Formats: sequence, C-alpha cells, structure tokens
Amino acid sequence: MSGNSNSNRQILLVERPDGKLLVSHFHARDGDIPEPETGEVLVRTILLSIDAANRAWMQGATYRDAVNAGEIMAGGGIAEVVESRADGFKTGDLVSAETGWQEYAAVPAAHVRRLPEHRPLSNLLSVLGVAGKTAYHGLIEVGGPKAGETVVVSAAAGSVGSYVGPIAKALECRAIGIAGGAEKCEWLTSELGFDAAVDYKSPNFFRELKAACPDGIDIYFDNTGGKILEANLFQMNNKGRVVCCGAVSQYNTNELYSPRGIPGLLVVKRIRMQGFIVSDFAAKDVEAEARMLDWAQTGKIKIVEDILEGLDSAPSGLVGLLAGENRGKRMVRVAPDPE
Amino acid sequence: MSGNSNSNRQILLVERPDGKLLVSHFHARDGDIPEPETGEVLVRTILLSIDAANRAWMQGATYRDAVNAGEIMAGGGIAEVVESRADGFKTGDLVSAETGWQEYAAVPAAHVRRLPEHRPLSNLLSVLGVAGKTAYHGLIEVGGPKAGETVVVSAAAGSVGSYVGPIAKALECRAIGIAGGAEKCEWLTSELGFDAAVDYKSPNFFRELKAACPDGIDIYFDNTGGKILEANLFQMNNKGRVVCCGAVSQYNTNELYSPRGIPGLLVVKRIRMQGFIVSDFAAKDVEAEARMLDWAQTGKIKIVEDILEGLDSAPSGLVGLLAGENRGKRMVRVAPDPE
Repeated sequence: MSGNSNSNRQILLVERPDGKLLVSHFHARDGDIPEPETGEVLVRTILLSIDAANRAWMQGATYRDAVNAGEIMAGGGIAEVVESRADGFKTGDLVSAETGWQEYAAVPAAHVRRLPEHRPLSNLLSVLGVAGKTAYHGLIEVGGPKAGETVVVSAAAGSVGSYVGPIAKALECRAIGIAGGAEKCEWLTSELGFDAAVDYKSPNFFRELKAACPDGIDIYFDNTGGKILEANLFQMNNKGRVVCCGAVSQYNTNELYSPRGIPGLLVVKRIRMQGFIVSDFAAKDVEAEARMLDWAQTGKIKIVEDILEGLDSAPSGLVGLLAGENRGKRMVRVAPDPE
Repeated sequence: MSGNSNSNRQILLVERPDGKLLVSHFHARDGDIPEPETGEVLVRTILLSIDAANRAWMQGATYRDAVNAGEIMAGGGIAEVVESRADGFKTGDLVSAETGWQEYAAVPAAHVRRLPEHRPLSNLLSVLGVAGKTAYHGLIEVGGPKAGETVVVSAAAGSVGSYVGPIAKALECRAIGIAGGAEKCEWLTSELGFDAAVDYKSPNFFRELKAACPDGIDIYFDNTGGKILEANLFQMNNKGRVVCCGAVSQYNTNELYSPRGIPGLLVVKRIRMQGFIVSDFAAKDVEAEARMLDWAQTGKIKIVEDILEGLDSAPSGLVGLLAGENRGKRMVRVAPDPE
C-alpha cells in the first residue's frame, strides 16, 4: 500500500510487452492527488478488477483505446466519491469507475455509474459484476442452452468460467470444465459442481475431452481460443454453438494459433460461432443480477473471489492471472469497504 | 453421349484425388440398365447438377457418405421415371433424384421427389433449385440483411454467388462480388448488377476490397474460406455476420489455410459466423421459390445457367468448375427435356 495520505500511489505501464507480460513492465510511484474539474468527481479506488482483457488492451485498440507505455495502467473497479464537482454525485457515493491503477482519480461524472447497495462490495465485481453477467449473458443469450445439452467452458476456474459451469447446471445442462492442472480440475468438480473437468495440459487432452463428452458438445464457451478452441470445434454436434468470449491463450504471446477446421466444420455441422461483449446485453442486466443472486442464495452457484491486498500487488496479480493462477474473479483491494 | 439404347453410360471415380482433381481420376464405361426392385423406380437422367460439393464428398464423410474409388460418381439432378415398381410414381413422372453420374439408375422411391411443372427444367436446378435457395436462405435467414447494409459474396460468379448479389440488391443492400479475373468481375457489374466487383487474384486484393467497401462489411457470404475469408473478417463491421456456405478454396488441395483473427476478431467486433445447409430451411422453400420467381420475372434477378452437353462432359465440367471457369449454375445435359 501507499505512503502518506497526501500522495497518490500509481502504477504505470513503462513498456508495452513484446510477447510475455512481466512485472518489470510496470513501475510504481507516489504521484499527486488530482484536482477534479467542473463536471468531474474525485474518487478513491476501493477494488480494482484484474482481467485478461487488461493484457489484450496492450496489443492495440480493441473495443477501447490501446494502453500505451508511460501511461497509468488502464483498469477500473469500485471507488468512492471523495469530492464532487458534478451534479448528481456527492461525497460518499459508491461508483464503478475507470480509475486506472491508482489510489485517486478525477473522472468525468458521465463515465461513472452509481452502484446498488450491496456488501461485500467485491460481489459487485464477481457474481453481480461483469464476470457473472458475462457468464450469464454469454451462455444464455449467445449460447441458447437447452436442458440436457452438453456445455464445455475453457478457463473454467477463471472469473467467467467459474460461473458458466454452475449456471449451465442450474439450467439442467451437463457442464464440463477445461482448466490447467489436475488440482484445478479436481476443484472444479468437487467445489463448483462441474460434471467433469479436463486438463488442457495433458498430452491426451483431445481424447480426455472426448471421454468427458460422450454425447458430443452442444455449446462451447470459449475463453481461450487457439488449440483448445480447435479441439472443441472438432467435437461439436450438429447445430452446436461456440460462444466467443475471449482468447486468453492469444493475449500474452506473439505466437498466434489459428484453429483448423474453419470454415469447413462450421458448414458441415452448421455451427454458429458468435462473439459478444457484456454490454451488448445491458438491457437484461437487471434480470441477470436477480437470477444470479437467487442462484447464489439457494446454493446453486458458489461465489468465488480471489482478492489480492494492496495496489502494488496489481502487476504480479495480472501476470499471475495470465499464467492461470487465479481461482474465480481476481481483484485487488486498494482500500477497505466503507461501513 | 452414349452408345446404344440398351446400354447405360456411367462415369466412375477410379481414384480418390490426393490434392487436385483431374479428369484422369474418372473413367467412362457402358454398363447395364438396372432392374428396379419393389419399392424402386427406374429413372433416366435428364440434367446432372455439377457442384463444388461433389469434390468435397471425395475428402471424406460430410453431411453425406464419402465417395469412394471404384464407385459410380455420386451426384444427382433431374430425371424421368421410365419404370415404376413403387406406389405413387408412374412412367413419365419428373423427379429430382440422386442418380449418380449415369444415364439410368434404380433408386428407392422414398429418395426421389416429384418436381413441380416448370420449363425449362434447368431452372429447377438454378433459380428455383438448390443454388437459388442456398443463396436465398443463406443471405436472408442466416445473414439477416437490412436495407443499406454492405453485402460481400465470394465465388460471386458461381451458382450460388450469382444469386446472392442480385438478391442483396433486391433487398436494397449494397452488393460487392469477389471473383477471379477482370473479365468475370466486369461481368458481375455489367450483367448481374453488382455495385462493384473485386478480383481475388489481384496482388492488391485486400486494398481493393477495402476501396469497394468504404462503409465496411456487414454481411460476408463465404463460398471460399481461406485467405478470402480472412480478408473479409478483418474488414467486418461490429455485429457483422459471416454466412458460411462453402469453402471451395479448400476442397481441391491438401494445403489448407486457417484464417487468422479467429476468435479474436469475432470477440472484439461481436461477429456471428454461422454454417448452414439448404435443407435446414426447407420449411421456407415455398416462400423462397415464389419470391425468386417473382424477382426473375420482374428482372431483379437474372437466371444464369451454364449447361454442358453430354454425360461424358461431367468430369471436365467438375474440374473446370473447381478452377472457376463456370458462370452461374453449372449442369450437364444427359437427355433433352421431355415435351
């Protein structure tokens, strides 16, 4: 954590990675607390969301601008208004905001969103946040699951994947998780209720996936791209759906892999592959939050959070997430939840 | 054409091609006219449909069994019943049937379908047949075009592509065709009404496609796969749709090419890629036929047919089609239309 109360701890991206992201690509410093302009609010960061997408932003412009070397690392999460120079916000308001990786940020009021009353706040980044809603909208709106179908998800122990499996189970589908290592696979079945889990690092991955899906794959929720996507494509059933949510296997490397079988398999099996981002389905967020909360309260889904302490843990937290060390939604606590 | 009236001219696939299909992979012979069994009809082939899919069947099982060496080449088209041993069919009935590449075939009555009254019969393989319906259902049901959108189609001078462009125009979209060579491109704009055409053999293909689509691409109707698919993917608009109809660039070669940008571009641009086969939309065939006929009669779409004479022209007809020499729906006339 930071120094004295007048300083603003900040983490900069000092170099855009060429290949693998390292902790040494970041630099921490004590900067100044900014003055908010008219129309802005000054916020104090409480929780920062750590996501594979943070790394993707370093590759160039996506649905948002690229992050450049020398800038405060982009990111956001939950923050508290400490000074308002904008109508509609007052000191003490809890908001979601793109603060960047720093303790204090002055942000345009038009870019922040007031948060619902809910404690702990971390739930608003996990089960009730982007992670949970990405799983919910991706599986339900893009995948269109029917009871009895087989749903496979990659990065199944990750922030989104750890909800996709339990939601699939709640919808009476068979849920298969793909993760790295026997220990994580064991955790998926024993703790999260997946029907089976398959280790993508196994030399027999393709065969083990086949054994776990004796009726083929109806929906593949893809968080990884690359060879894992390819293995699923070759095992999809006719009229299967591939939910394209992310491509974490492709973010932290220059060795991109293009899956075979496209478009041939899509034609022959009449597969639909569809990309989305969570805000495409904002109109259904209220429904998603209500159902997720209900499933969490009735024990159908488990809230899994992976909270690192202190802003300075953000760089190693992101590097570790890209190596697959997190279980559930990873975030960094910068300040305690207000009472 | 064949020898005497008691013989049955047949074309066999004598060797499954490893790479490029050659005329020498086929062999013509005079076989016997078969005797139909109970439940079968004996039919005489009138027109054979020549399709890129014929080549795909040689690669292995797809939505139908593979074609094997030593067998009569698989295929079908329009035939006339010359002897019926099945209820519901009589001599003189016109049917669509999987005859194989031969003059006479005994086929189960359950596998033939009576054709509507329409002359010339060739229209039932082109504008009112699988070619036209594939274009119609693929563009409308899978692509979901809206007026003002940009539609690009590859193999635009081919059996399906030559209808996709005019249907897109009839629906008030902008239609861009991709074809091989300046002459075919000129024909697409001057004869078929495409707004622009781009030669995929040009060294500046990517840039020329971009120039032809100043507002980006909303729907790409893919008949080719490979690098042409890739070029389109990189130019798709947000929420674009890729209609996966075929992959002719990948059928006649062992050098398969997997397009880059999958799944990354699908996620970032929220693209939907979807495969289909025409029979998925059989419930809407009547609607498709009525609208296609109406557009043809009002001059909105032009009926383009490429009819080769005589069964023995089938092998070179297929080899030529795979090299892109046809314009519009290619077929082989085996016998004249009955009165």
